[in-house]
Amino acid sequence: MTPKVSIIMGSVSDMPIMEDAAKFLDELNIAFEINALSAHRTPEMVMEFAQNAHTRGVKVIIAGAGGAAHLPGVIAASTPLPVIGVPIKSSNSIDGWDSILSMLQMPAGIPVATVALNGARNAGILAAQIIATGEPEMLKVMVDFKKSLGEKVVKANQELANVKFKCKTN
Amino acid sequence: MTPKVSIIMGSVSDMPIMEDAAKFLDELNIAFEINALSAHRTPEMVMEFAQNAHTRGVKVIIAGAGGAAHLPGVIAASTPLPVIGVPIKSSNSIDGWDSILSMLQMPAGIPVATVALNGARNAGILAAQIIATGEPEMLKVMVDFKKSLGEKVVKANQELANVKFKCKTN
Amino acid sequence: MTPKVSIIMGSVSDMPIMEDAAKFLDELNIAFEINALSAHRTPEMVMEFAQNAHTRGVKVIIAGAGGAAHLPGVIAASTPLPVIGVPIKSSNSIDGWDSILSMLQMPAGIPVATVALNGARNAGILAAQIIATGEPEMLKVMVDFKKSLGEKVVKANQELANVKFKCKTN
Amino acid sequence: MTPKVSIIMGSVSDMPIMEDAAKFLDELNIAFEINALSAHRTPEMVMEFAQNAHTRGVKVIIAGAGGAAHLPGVIAASTPLPVIGVPIKSSNSIDGWDSILSMLQMPAGIPVATVALNGARNAGILAAQIIATGEPEMLKVMVDFKKSLGEKVVKANQELANVKFKCKTN
Amino acid sequence: MTPKVSIIMGSVSDMPIMEDAAKFLDELNIAFEINALSAHRTPEMVMEFAQNAHTRGVKVIIAGAGGAAHLPGVIAASTPLPVIGVPIKSSNSIDGWDSILSMLQMPAGIPVATVALNGARNAGILAAQIIATGEPEMLKVMVDFKKSLGEKVVKANQELANVKFKCKTN
Amino acid sequence: MTPKVSIIMGSVSDMPIMEDAAKFLDELNIAFEINALSAHRTPEMVMEFAQNAHTRGVKVIIAGAGGAAHLPGVIAASTPLPVIGVPIKSSNSIDGWDSILSMLQMPAGIPVATVALNGARNAGILAAQIIATGEPEMLKVMVDFKKSLGEKVVKANQELANVKFKCKTN
Amino acid sequence: MTPKVSIIMGSVSDMPIMEDAAKFLDELNIAFEINALSAHRTPEMVMEFAQNAHTRGVKVIIAGAGGAAHLPGVIAASTPLPVIGVPIKSSNSIDGWDSILSMLQMPAGIPVATVALNGARNAGILAAQIIATGEPEMLKVMVDFKKSLGEKVVKANQELANVKFKCKTN
Amino acid sequence: MTPKVSIIMGSVSDMPIMEDAAKFLDELNIAFEINALSAHRTPEMVMEFAQNAHTRGVKVIIAGAGGAAHLPGVIAASTPLPVIGVPIKSSNSIDGWDSILSMLQMPAGIPVATVALNGARNAGILAAQIIATGEPEMLKVMVDFKKSLGEKVVKANQELANVKFKCKTN
Repeated sequence: MTPKVSIIMGSVSDMPIMEDAAKFLDELNIAFEINALSAHRTPEMVMEFAQNAHTRGVKVIIAGAGGAAHLPGVIAASTPLPVIGVPIKSSNSIDGWDSILSMLQMPAGIPVATVALNGARNAGILAAQIIATGEPEMLKVMVDFKKSLGEKVVKANQELANVKFKCKTN
Repeated sequence: MTPKVSIIMGSVSDMPIMEDAAKFLDELNIAFEINALSAHRTPEMVMEFAQNAHTRGVKVIIAGAGGAAHLPGVIAASTPLPVIGVPIKSSNSIDGWDSILSMLQMPAGIPVATVALNGARNAGILAAQIIATGEPEMLKVMVDFKKSLGEKVVKANQELANVKFKCKTN
Repeated sequence: MTPKVSIIMGSVSDMPIMEDAAKFLDELNIAFEINALSAHRTPEMVMEFAQNAHTRGVKVIIAGAGGAAHLPGVIAASTPLPVIGVPIKSSNSIDGWDSILSMLQMPAGIPVATVALNGARNAGILAAQIIATGEPEMLKVMVDFKKSLGEKVVKANQELANVKFKCKTN
Repeated sequence: MTPKVSIIMGSVSDMPIMEDAAKFLDELNIAFEINALSAHRTPEMVMEFAQNAHTRGVKVIIAGAGGAAHLPGVIAASTPLPVIGVPIKSSNSIDGWDSILSMLQMPAGIPVATVALNGARNAGILAAQIIATGEPEMLKVMVDFKKSLGEKVVKANQELANVKFKCKTN
Repeated sequence: MTPKVSIIMGSVSDMPIMEDAAKFLDELNIAFEINALSAHRTPEMVMEFAQNAHTRGVKVIIAGAGGAAHLPGVIAASTPLPVIGVPIKSSNSIDGWDSILSMLQMPAGIPVATVALNGARNAGILAAQIIATGEPEMLKVMVDFKKSLGEKVVKANQELANVKFKCKTN
Repeated sequence: MTPKVSIIMGSVSDMPIMEDAAKFLDELNIAFEINALSAHRTPEMVMEFAQNAHTRGVKVIIAGAGGAAHLPGVIAASTPLPVIGVPIKSSNSIDGWDSILSMLQMPAGIPVATVALNGARNAGILAAQIIATGEPEMLKVMVDFKKSLGEKVVKANQELANVKFKCKTN
Repeated sequence: MTPKVSIIMGSVSDMPIMEDAAKFLDELNIAFEINALSAHRTPEMVMEFAQNAHTRGVKVIIAGAGGAAHLPGVIAASTPLPVIGVPIKSSNSIDGWDSILSMLQMPAGIPVATVALNGARNAGILAAQIIATGEPEMLKVMVDFKKSLGEKVVKANQELANVKFKCKTN
Repeated sequence: MTPKVSIIMGSVSDMPIMEDAAKFLDELNIAFEINALSAHRTPEMVMEFAQNAHTRGVKVIIAGAGGAAHLPGVIAASTPLPVIGVPIKSSNSIDGWDSILSMLQMPAGIPVATVALNGARNAGILAAQIIATGEPEMLKVMVDFKKSLGEKVVKANQELANVKFKCKTN
């Protein structure tokens, strides 16, 4: 099976964050692959991966990294595919600012689609939305997904109905 | 002609930044539309726009805004399409931090693909990359585009060859 | 009983912070309602709520949210009522900066009255002060409330009187 | 004529920012007064002002200051009225962070309703919204005001219709 | 006994930090007093304290506070004495930035001598140095104190001599 | 004449900021000296200066510097005198944060009394307040100085009385 | 044995961080020494150390410190040797910003080669790279070291191969 | 002539900053080369450069870049040579924070010796200090260079001697 999404992380220790992207793709039955590749420790493997991903049928790349998080940008430099960056708040990080700015502030020509700090689930959703631009059935799935978000809030709201205060009117 | 990309900005005063996205799409012959819609001043128009864009054939939305920049997130809440956010450094902005964080830190379920501060050209490129995931000819265009980036650097480098220093060896 | 204050939060998980607003209103016998509504997950419910709150007799809205905290601003866009924003320091927040700036830096025309990070009790007090501008008896209550603040400090100060140091003179 | 709003600023040099609040109140025919009072240079005058404003019929206080901006908080300490704080980016300010945090992070018991950096117009609007909670006719004015915000955006949007690009479809 | 130093804190909960100032003064046999006074909850007591401290023989005031830390500045506004400010990192503080900037960025005319975050011991040392400018015997004590600082480092260094590494030469 | 205050700056280019300290001391007839000494370019001169200043009769040292502003701390390490630090926003400074944190966050044992960014006038005032702790006549001067601050505000306020608005009541 | 690298730390409490530099040098059989010297508590010892290190055969100095971290800069002021600075996130540090900026922002003439927050291992590696510029055999060691970095990532990647998801293709 | 130092910049537009490194090397007669290479636009040229620089006799690499400044880190990933990073404050930079953090916070194994924002002259000095660790004559040059720094300060200080104030004693 050809993976449509390739999930890359700078270090295996990022897996507890990055697995949220994998779980979402699993929920939607989107084929994906997962690898650890370091922009700094395996630069040639990263370049080879980036240059070839689109020839293997990959549609979207999700790359997560912490600290001076170069991985998404370095991949974006060598692929025509959209690259989604997940800044990760690692130990010795400066509150996450380092990974956010290292991804977000890419120069003209090489965008990285940056999501929230530790926001791997949103990276998975964004990947699905991107795939849906070329697959009408997936677009329907995303329409339904967006609708489902509200239902959880409505259900959760019923918890609040049970909280008692003297002057509470609802 | 059906626009594939819809460019939205929070205020007409954002046009000098946002036109960089339009120019890139023009270079690549990708049909687009441009509108000013405010998440706060025209909320109903924003919601209507967001709910219907995909039914009109729009594939990607680019939304730019400054300050407490809610526009991309508010649109993302009501569309199944990928939304690219361009944080803008407006007057009275706090060095751009406000617009960056208002877009980037979206909650789980509603990603905004955030690019660099004032990075509208990169938003245009990312939109083209997203469209290319469903259009093989566009993918070829993006492969060529990435290659062209290096040529400008090589050309510019020749300027440096002309700079004279006593100990310069190249 | 018609609620004078409507407390809204972006997620039920914000209740441990937001209940401080409810407790203060309870102390002062001000009728209120509490609901969870998400600017991003239930946008239409938020808009309907915002457009109608003043017609139901609500005087003030208190809205708390974390991350890219759009809720108070989105409500403020569609209501003529004063909206008090409570920035919440949620997990994956960037030290609270994201929620503060997403509320504080609203554009001209749509103010959000922002209080301190996690400052829900102050939001409750501010709501009471606002109601008191139209209700002379409530104004008296607030005059007494402000006086009472000092008494706690004076009482607490007596603890310090009992701390012993060799050179302490009081 | 009794002023309903009292506009205070820490220094006369803040007038170019603070006059935006005055202009808005003028547009809505709300009586107001303007004074410069410094929390640090005229502390006794500030305390006297704060203790008596509500007895003179003032409903809302707007206080603007820069740097270590104590003025709104010091006034809030001695008045039962709602106090709106306008952080001002003065020279030698640290990008406005100092005035924002000095107002926003008030301790429990003494809220300051903080608006955006240099956001004096929004302070004026918020003051009108607060007054409207006790005056039904003013509430109608505010309903109309909110509606008017969208019209300007719609009008401005027509400018964008005139911008020409090869691939622009609207 | 007349206190030479007056230690003030915004809340009794600041005592675990502020007692470091008291301990240092105790070590040097400098008479002091300790009180909790809130700029916002007991403004009149603060003003009275500030206006009279120098008439009671107090030479230096040390004031600690967290959040929007107005206490040192408000005291400085009404006393001719030098005021040392101790910014405190309290809960709900924004990493201490709020208390630092609220003290440090005082306007021209009303300095607060700010020390490090939670740096109460240094506030005590600075108070002793200030007193020593008018008391030659205290100046000798401070000369000896500065010398003693190095001795602790030299002693601690001997621990490092015992750490073993293969290539360590000392 | 023996100088009571010694003003030091890291570079002659800091003089436009630091002269504000000199001007204030001049107004109060306090003898002072001014020198440029660099913690990094003339470290031995700095150490010699710091070790001997108190033996020459100097009471207080004011040290201004920008960037990684070590000068006040390095002087404080070798003198028993109180050292006032003036953080300076130089070119290539990071908005002044570097000089502020390099002075403020001194370790236990070696306080630097830090004032506002570019706050040299306040450094001069603080020096006078410190001298006044040992000189009763100077204390009277400082009492009068504090009173004079309010008068300027009152006078400036009269400007505001002349500003005309339709709804202005004062 | 003459040490080639001298590791200095501002306080013995920095040893748990700084020992990472020592461990790396041990792995590569590079002779080193370790000492605690405080820029503020033992300034004369620091100056003597800095002035003489190169005459004893030391090639590189690694200096770690927290807070207002002057140690690397003060050493750099008096030595012709390259000084590597390790900013340390100590208690009461402001998220590490203070130590980073105190080292990084050195004035022209006195560079400090700053590495990541708590990055002592990288300081050790950088020291070895510097020594290798004059020792061809060490350069070979560093070539091998860089290659070895990738192998760990490849090995770790095999863990990911074992993670099971329904749609995972690798 | 073989260059000992290779100066790389991400874009020719960085030359006005980076030429300060070249000027210093020229002053000391150290052979160098200058090139523009982009981590993102010419990734293969960067990798080839990094892998081969040490085989050509280059001893030290200086790399300057702005925004998400990956260049020094990407080079460091593929060279055994010490890499000095110069963060550059470019347009659309977020006050320089982005380039600083993208260089400084490199992961364990791949250090970048980061200097001050726009600190290219210090990068040149550090390169000379590194070369001097293997060349005794260059070490003497650096000893003299450090001494010369103080002379400029002493000369500049004479300007201050000419500034007149009533109470100035020197």
